[in-house]
Amino acid sequence: MSDSTSTSIGLLLFPALTQLDLTGPYEVFARAPNTNVHLIWKNLDRVISDRGMAIQPTTTFEACPKLDVICVPGGPGQIDLMEDEEVLSFIRIQSEQAKLVTSVCTGSLVLGAAGLLEGYRATTHWASLEQLALLGAEPVNERVVRDRNRITGAGVTSGIDFALNVVSEMYGSDIAQNIQLHMEYDPAPPFNCGSPRTAPAEQLRKAQEQVAPFIEKRRLATLKAAARLKK
Amino acid sequence: MSDSTSTSIGLLLFPALTQLDLTGPYEVFARAPNTNVHLIWKNLDRVISDRGMAIQPTTTFEACPKLDVICVPGGPGQIDLMEDEEVLSFIRIQSEQAKLVTSVCTGSLVLGAAGLLEGYRATTHWASLEQLALLGAEPVNERVVRDRNRITGAGVTSGIDFALNVVSEMYGSDIAQNIQLHMEYDPAPPFNCGSPRTAPAEQLRKAQEQVAPFIEKRRLATLKAAARLKK
Repeated sequence: MSDSTSTSIGLLLFPALTQLDLTGPYEVFARAPNTNVHLIWKNLDRVISDRGMAIQPTTTFEACPKLDVICVPGGPGQIDLMEDEEVLSFIRIQSEQAKLVTSVCTGSLVLGAAGLLEGYRATTHWASLEQLALLGAEPVNERVVRDRNRITGAGVTSGIDFALNVVSEMYGSDIAQNIQLHMEYDPAPPFNCGSPRTAPAEQLRKAQEQVAPFIEKRRLATLKAAARLKK
Repeated sequence: MSDSTSTSIGLLLFPALTQLDLTGPYEVFARAPNTNVHLIWKNLDRVISDRGMAIQPTTTFEACPKLDVICVPGGPGQIDLMEDEEVLSFIRIQSEQAKLVTSVCTGSLVLGAAGLLEGYRATTHWASLEQLALLGAEPVNERVVRDRNRITGAGVTSGIDFALNVVSEMYGSDIAQNIQLHMEYDPAPPFNCGSPRTAPAEQLRKAQEQVAPFIEKRRLATLKAAARLKK
């Protein structure tokens, strides 16, 4: 239950999502004061992530209250969302009155498929970044991108940086810093291999090769979504 | 199902855990080649995290195969685990043959309560670090601490750094770097407030005040666990 004095943040929870796209921001948002965080799907059945974790939604499209922040995570399952009118319609309607319309990873392509990024600067996972342009957005190679009330995060782990930015925007930097300290977010990656900018060439080549078939599948879905937007 | 040629990594999933302690490492481990990642609890009923996320275990103490890596996350619920002989016994038995015995956040206090950190260097969430000494461990103020086959991570978000270290150890640094790149782990915290070392004094004071009652409750549970170990 939410009431008019509390903040409602909703994360879309869908089959074959990349769970950390959602669980990173969830941990940050759930620590914000006087806030209800909703995990939203078509029904309340548990949802299985791309790598097998089963998480239960807390509300449905139908029962979900008006959201102050809507956030769409990414993962292989977002390909299906891009042509799911029930999903796109839910996102569009919530976005009309939400203070912030946001995404992590390839979730931004779903926002794009809903027509919500036309003319906006946005980001997504590095391997899919160029595809944002197909949906009328301006791809920006940054970890967290804000343009008016759209905030998009880059791949997977960017969700933590993204969510701290969102909390800072919604509740002020004092609260965001307090949450960062409680979560001991003082990252120390053991390698300097977290982005195409820093990864050794051979690592980048290998990763690109591994995702290539999948990126092509996503590109076709994005092209279809773009064609529907132009109708 | 695991077979003799695959690697089994088990994460304890318990009521009132801090879900990111588990979901961060899960995302890393589940990307390792030829690996089964188990979410283990007493039964298969969904487990509710300290902030309300419902995740389903994949196996039980009874059905769990022999693990190559056992990992205990933290969170308020670990206080109960420290005096739960069924849990401690499961961890002890698995640890006898596991290649790596590990934890994230206050999970290390559970390892300690099981008698598995006596004489080992270890870490935990900054607010509980000193308590490790009560269980015979040497507290180390680092993000990821290795001593022989024990690897412990600091608070919450350290689980990602921790897990990349574990993967590097088990599968080699090439695989760990590959996973880091796919997860776009190139962190960019918006504030420099993630540890007591870097946080502004006022932020640290406030956070310490907020956790004080809870830390005291944990200290009493840790003292009781220490007394049991000495028997």
